Amino acid sequence: MSKNLTKREIDYSKWYNELVVKADLAENSAVRGCMVIKPYGYAIWEKMQAQLDKMFKETGHENAYFPLFVPKSLFEAEEKNAEGFAKECAVVTHYRLQNDPDNPGKLRVDPTAKLEEELVVRPTSEAIIWNTYRGWIQSYRDLPLLINQWANVVRWEMRTRLFLRTAEFLWQEGHTAHATKSEAITEAMLMQKVYAEFAEGFMAMPVIKGSKSESERFAGADETFTIEALMQDGKALQAGTSHFLGQNFAKAFDVKYTSKEGKQEYVWATSWGVSTRLIGGLIMTHSDDFGLVLPPKLAPIQVVIVPIYKGDDQLEAISERVEVFVKGLRAKGISVKYDDRDTFRPGAKFAEYELKGVPIRIAIGSRDLENNTIEVARRDTLEKETVSQDAIVDYVSVLLDKIQTNLFDRAVEYRNEHTTEVDTFEEFKQALETKGGFVSAHWDGTAETEEKIKELTKATIRCIPLDGKIEEGKCVFSGQKSSQRVLFAKAY
Amino acid sequence: MSKNLTKREIDYSKWYNELVVKADLAENSAVRGCMVIKPYGYAIWEKMQAQLDKMFKETGHENAYFPLFVPKSLFEAEEKNAEGFAKECAVVTHYRLQNDPDNPGKLRVDPTAKLEEELVVRPTSEAIIWNTYRGWIQSYRDLPLLINQWANVVRWEMRTRLFLRTAEFLWQEGHTAHATKSEAITEAMLMQKVYAEFAEGFMAMPVIKGSKSESERFAGADETFTIEALMQDGKALQAGTSHFLGQNFAKAFDVKYTSKEGKQEYVWATSWGVSTRLIGGLIMTHSDDFGLVLPPKLAPIQVVIVPIYKGDDQLEAISERVEVFVKGLRAKGISVKYDDRDTFRPGAKFAEYELKGVPIRIAIGSRDLENNTIEVARRDTLEKETVSQDAIVDYVSVLLDKIQTNLFDRAVEYRNEHTTEVDTFEEFKQALETKGGFVSAHWDGTAETEEKIKELTKATIRCIPLDGKIEEGKCVFSGQKSSQRVLFAKAY
Repeated sequence: MSKNLTKREIDYSKWYNELVVKADLAENSAVRGCMVIKPYGYAIWEKMQAQLDKMFKETGHENAYFPLFVPKSLFEAEEKNAEGFAKECAVVTHYRLQNDPDNPGKLRVDPTAKLEEELVVRPTSEAIIWNTYRGWIQSYRDLPLLINQWANVVRWEMRTRLFLRTAEFLWQEGHTAHATKSEAITEAMLMQKVYAEFAEGFMAMPVIKGSKSESERFAGADETFTIEALMQDGKALQAGTSHFLGQNFAKAFDVKYTSKEGKQEYVWATSWGVSTRLIGGLIMTHSDDFGLVLPPKLAPIQVVIVPIYKGDDQLEAISERVEVFVKGLRAKGISVKYDDRDTFRPGAKFAEYELKGVPIRIAIGSRDLENNTIEVARRDTLEKETVSQDAIVDYVSVLLDKIQTNLFDRAVEYRNEHTTEVDTFEEFKQALETKGGFVSAHWDGTAETEEKIKELTKATIRCIPLDGKIEEGKCVFSGQKSSQRVLFAKAY
Repeated sequence: MSKNLTKREIDYSKWYNELVVKADLAENSAVRGCMVIKPYGYAIWEKMQAQLDKMFKETGHENAYFPLFVPKSLFEAEEKNAEGFAKECAVVTHYRLQNDPDNPGKLRVDPTAKLEEELVVRPTSEAIIWNTYRGWIQSYRDLPLLINQWANVVRWEMRTRLFLRTAEFLWQEGHTAHATKSEAITEAMLMQKVYAEFAEGFMAMPVIKGSKSESERFAGADETFTIEALMQDGKALQAGTSHFLGQNFAKAFDVKYTSKEGKQEYVWATSWGVSTRLIGGLIMTHSDDFGLVLPPKLAPIQVVIVPIYKGDDQLEAISERVEVFVKGLRAKGISVKYDDRDTFRPGAKFAEYELKGVPIRIAIGSRDLENNTIEVARRDTLEKETVSQDAIVDYVSVLLDKIQTNLFDRAVEYRNEHTTEVDTFEEFKQALETKGGFVSAHWDGTAETEEKIKELTKATIRCIPLDGKIEEGKCVFSGQKSSQRVLFAKAY
């Protein structure tokens, strides 16, 4: 398979699919819409998980694990939630296979092994979890209950794309229970903040914090908080959501607590999640026509060292020197790979690590040994520099930070260039067509207008920004009064 | 709910079930046979995962993720494997729910949304993984392929018990591909060794390394290596298995590689797994009538500090002193909880941490402040000692190691006392009935004898010990010649 990628400006979507496969991140599987996450892609997910898990624990959450299956009667208990997910539920109806009498060597579903009640493969776990919480919560002393789960979920989507939208995906889902409404809202917004800090501080992916319009809310939520990122093709990506669920699930599953005053009250709830979709966002925020570009904080390999040598003697001398650098770098917590495979030439190795987005590539040859130098190449800018071997550890350490910052700054700049304030529907359409990106416009607050704009332009309201200023204006579509701009975009 | 447990000698099985629930490890869910792993139980699993994952990576393995679903046609490709698992497969047949016209507010399976091909919820992933490996392996350069997956699997077992046997469970499954038979066998045995080191070094649970008799092998394996532990009720627990799969899956899924000599060869395979069942083994190896006893290396909380005070002034003075200890202990990597809740009395706290198996409990009162002392209680022996505050950090650090060692030694002693060599079938039955445990006996190597012994005594061959000495003897049942003793036991 050729390592050459389709260029982004030729076909962004094709570029993305090729990159995911060629950089060894993931591939489609034999199961419709489900992907295989390959070791290199999974290593990025492990880095994301480790950091998020740390942030969840620092904010007081504990992990637990709830069943994969949701009995249909529980699934349907919270009506809006059930309605929202019913159309994409994988359903287990039988629990046994048997030899197929008509096809020797083949199996078929055993018709006598039908479940009394069908089981839904969880598309999200509110139902099974709130049914469990009923047994865990009696008194105000049991609150808040702050639980997170790392799990797989299944949503039988018709159109799937690696990482961005797959029938099965990996995610975390937080599910918390609180004594008061304001506590629950505070929690939902706190987790939105945690997500934003993770996206910006680790993924180097700038995000807008906002809340969703009613029609874009999670099914069963009273309010959905979101972080929205902008991809290089001008489309927005919903990168994480945090929901204030009101008392909807508490009422559907009869979860009450005795307050300090001795009264029986329904519990207030939140749920929040991010998924392997983030890897899609990471790819589309930074990568280029040469391949993946990974921010150092999430790169499985931060530095790769490639020896340039002829013959075993040269390799041995280089390896001896390299061993010292590797030790120094690892002592600083930097992940380094020394690629001394003799089955590939340096050029092929350079191309491989470029494709795989390793932030820093170091080359060292026998002349470098004489001159006490090495060559350091940055993946983000493709610049090279010759550096003294004595300075290597500090140089790399500083450079990793620089790359992390540069990626973030570059992405912010792109987003700024692709965010347009418009005051008429003509401007609105023009901005979308010519530049794409976020379009900041007044909206009259009605679902009708939202729906019509979507029909006409394919743009949806990504969010009502949290830090948006109050500003008198008129809806770009209906001309009705509006007091705040909202962000529209075409979205993944 | 009373904290008092049924005593082990009254009803071991009841004691176990009560302990799992009362110590907040897990509980049954609304889904038949599936459990909810509660935060305290999950925290133990996280410790296990972290250590195992480290050991897998140190032995060259990478993590990846494969789909939850296995299309029926792939599932049935390796016949023995399919046959072995067919009777316990949850099967997805539909992908949508709809409003039930006969029951307003209820949902039903949409009969028009039937899958063309049924999907088996993975009971194990050989089929889906080997179907994928066909695309990953072309040349000897692609080998060995050393992959591990952390995942949930489903086996529709009829009789389930928390942790020990559940319809859904969490596990890791390694799946490796090799160029030669001997490399694959070496790998399978290496992972058995890793499992044994984990069980003994971290769980403090002694295990026997052996291989399974043909009838106890994994469906689709040419050889199954196992680690077998002995529980306090004299029953054995299969704690982990590692399979040499020969070329069975390579042939079923047509996975070939081009050798250095340019020949097309089938690949050799292994798979190996341990699961949340290990938590059941951990519980049943060490715990007592007062509750859980956890080995320090896997305890979520290693040390709990309980203040004994009257009034806020005393608490404040104690807390100030405790803060110093906590810092010192944490600096040594020891996990400490300071429980200054004022909603519970010290006695209730003592009982709670005893039930939850925290290895060391420290109590400190106002007299201790005067005397510069603290009281240290060990969970394993229930002994208490008064210790100078100045010595606390080193004392605790050494004591944690002592407890870890003591638990292991105690378990080895129990196992030694409950392993009986027998030479006649009368002795065999008597040993099983009076002492339980492992019975070491000669066996003629036939499945018939194995089956008959099982019928008559409920004991199965747990393993043919790897380090068993060659010894001429006669099968206890048939009187036929035998050259090695094997271990029988009743088992979980």
